[in-house]
Amino acid sequence: MNVSIIGAATTKFGELWDVSPRALAREVVFGALKDAGIEVRQIQALFVGNMLSGMLGGQEHLGAFFAEELGFTNAAAFKIEGACASGGLAIHTAVNGILSGQYETVAVLGVEKMTDHKPEDVATALMGAGSSQERAAGCTFPGLYAILARMHMQEFGTTEEDMAAVAVKNHYHASLNPNAQFHRPITIEAVLKSHKVADPLKLLDCSPISDGASALVLSVRRQASGVKIVASSVATDTLGLDQRASLTELQATKEAALRAYKQAGIEAKDIDVAEAHDCFTIAEILALEDLGFYIKGSAARAIQAGEVTLGKAKKLVVNSSGGLKGCGHPIGATGVKQVVELVAQLRGTAGARQVAGARMGLAHNVGGSGATAVVHILKR
Amino acid sequence: MNVSIIGAATTKFGELWDVSPRALAREVVFGALKDAGIEVRQIQALFVGNMLSGMLGGQEHLGAFFAEELGFTNAAAFKIEGACASGGLAIHTAVNGILSGQYETVAVLGVEKMTDHKPEDVATALMGAGSSQERAAGCTFPGLYAILARMHMQEFGTTEEDMAAVAVKNHYHASLNPNAQFHRPITIEAVLKSHKVADPLKLLDCSPISDGASALVLSVRRQASGVKIVASSVATDTLGLDQRASLTELQATKEAALRAYKQAGIEAKDIDVAEAHDCFTIAEILALEDLGFYIKGSAARAIQAGEVTLGKAKKLVVNSSGGLKGCGHPIGATGVKQVVELVAQLRGTAGARQVAGARMGLAHNVGGSGATAVVHILKR
Repeated sequence: MNVSIIGAATTKFGELWDVSPRALAREVVFGALKDAGIEVRQIQALFVGNMLSGMLGGQEHLGAFFAEELGFTNAAAFKIEGACASGGLAIHTAVNGILSGQYETVAVLGVEKMTDHKPEDVATALMGAGSSQERAAGCTFPGLYAILARMHMQEFGTTEEDMAAVAVKNHYHASLNPNAQFHRPITIEAVLKSHKVADPLKLLDCSPISDGASALVLSVRRQASGVKIVASSVATDTLGLDQRASLTELQATKEAALRAYKQAGIEAKDIDVAEAHDCFTIAEILALEDLGFYIKGSAARAIQAGEVTLGKAKKLVVNSSGGLKGCGHPIGATGVKQVVELVAQLRGTAGARQVAGARMGLAHNVGGSGATAVVHILKR
Repeated sequence: MNVSIIGAATTKFGELWDVSPRALAREVVFGALKDAGIEVRQIQALFVGNMLSGMLGGQEHLGAFFAEELGFTNAAAFKIEGACASGGLAIHTAVNGILSGQYETVAVLGVEKMTDHKPEDVATALMGAGSSQERAAGCTFPGLYAILARMHMQEFGTTEEDMAAVAVKNHYHASLNPNAQFHRPITIEAVLKSHKVADPLKLLDCSPISDGASALVLSVRRQASGVKIVASSVATDTLGLDQRASLTELQATKEAALRAYKQAGIEAKDIDVAEAHDCFTIAEILALEDLGFYIKGSAARAIQAGEVTLGKAKKLVVNSSGGLKGCGHPIGATGVKQVVELVAQLRGTAGARQVAGARMGLAHNVGGSGATAVVHILKR
């Protein structure tokens, strides 16, 4: 697979009330172009990952919208949507655009503006990712992941403390990331005492509502110090939880991971640094098992033991950016930010978050409660 | 370019009040699979073109949604959106998926359900394709195309009768298409006397609000009787009319057409049959000029003289399906239906609409008032 990441940038994630989506896009795309050392006119296509702009803002047609804003005159442009996996799907589609020979150099923009809207409107719009039965039943996303958490607790003895440990780790990592939404480390006790959102998930088990944008420049051109994409895979499962064969794993994640490892010719144990989709703490536990890092039922205790924490891990570090939990979760941006973080790690420019000697990274982006999963593997 | 269209199907377009989007999707995708002679399990990826499902129905994540409905277990799945060009963009993205080597056989589904909603809600949602300035000014799509019509009339002496002739031709073609929304031929007088929507555009200058779905199966595998995609190109322009260099042409169409002709190694004069994006009658006039079939200012009279009408044309026939005007315009389905029509023409199975000896076809799909244009060229 001959696709290089030659530029990467992200905004700070958070409650960015005084910044427009246009300004967020300009900051990251021009940042990524500068990082790549190329000009606006060299971009032949733009792939935009976004979920909520139509439902919350009445603005669709974001491919052409941002191509105009960024001055990509006459470039091809696309909006790709797959709920919280929109960013990952945009990267996959961009990778295919290059591998197909249609484009030599393209930009990927993940962007979402959520905090300008009423939280209840955001929660309703987000359920557009779920099944109509789940919407009719009044389910929310925390509710769906609470079911997954309960099943995992029941089958493997996973505890609320285990889940809290994911939040503690990711807030610690976020405290080292200037672009993260949250910078204050938290404790297991704080998580356990935070108010219930959907039992057993508490406020500090949930990723926040966030604004932000992230961008990549992908190219067939190689760079001396470049990072390469060596696998890009997508898999789906049923939209609703009620149709799934199992509620203690995400089948789409397992399938996407298998394909990605095969494509890259590697195994899970070869990965040095991973960004895993931790929209809720239970989601990271599921992810580390479904991605093959741990056997089913054993990830929670490993996380709690510090096995994937910066400074403690022997090898694999998970969510050095802070993850969705600590860094924030602007839906369309998340999948792109994961790859931006891996680029920094593989280039050795991650500063206080640097995983020493990281050579192989994996990004795992999930849509809805697991109906879409995207896995990218990057190599220095 | 080694991509074959091995299956194609469309529903009837129209006011399909008793059919769900799921049922529309099943009809066309299973129809296209049957046409291709392949099984559900052979589909590795699904590319869905749709614009309004989120804004009007609260349902996003349509890739996984339809992959589940269609039984494409674990397949990759994507929703691609670019306003009225969503269908064309879905095809382009699918073509790239195959050319990239990621997928061997994929399905493209264009689907839209519009008539279940209040027309004013649909009109508002459709303006999600335009610029925020246009929305703030209270513009509607007929209003934007009325401006383009006025400019063309002013610069080239195009008349209301010229535009009416487009509607008359496309309703005539639609009368021969069992899947068209409208089956009654109309007259120039009827168009001129129909009530004004946005001066100079009258009701019969406008494509209708429609429900419908269309599907394709694309593959690296060749078929003896197969139709090949020999060019797939996308270009963009500014979202709003106020930022354009010219209002008598769609720059995105010109650019996408140039790239497509170059990719296919042909010229406009080689095309036997074209589906051009006639959301309004003026749009077909613009398209025939911008696609290079006629020099600027000369298409209207040619259409009126019957030069691109079935049974009268010497060579090129335009919108044998009835176009958006006569066949209907379910947004996400339109770009896919255009290609379904060309497949029938190139296979020689178009029945009463058959263009004798058609070997080379062109599909032209536009998003918004011209901010996105997609051109596909097909060869028997």
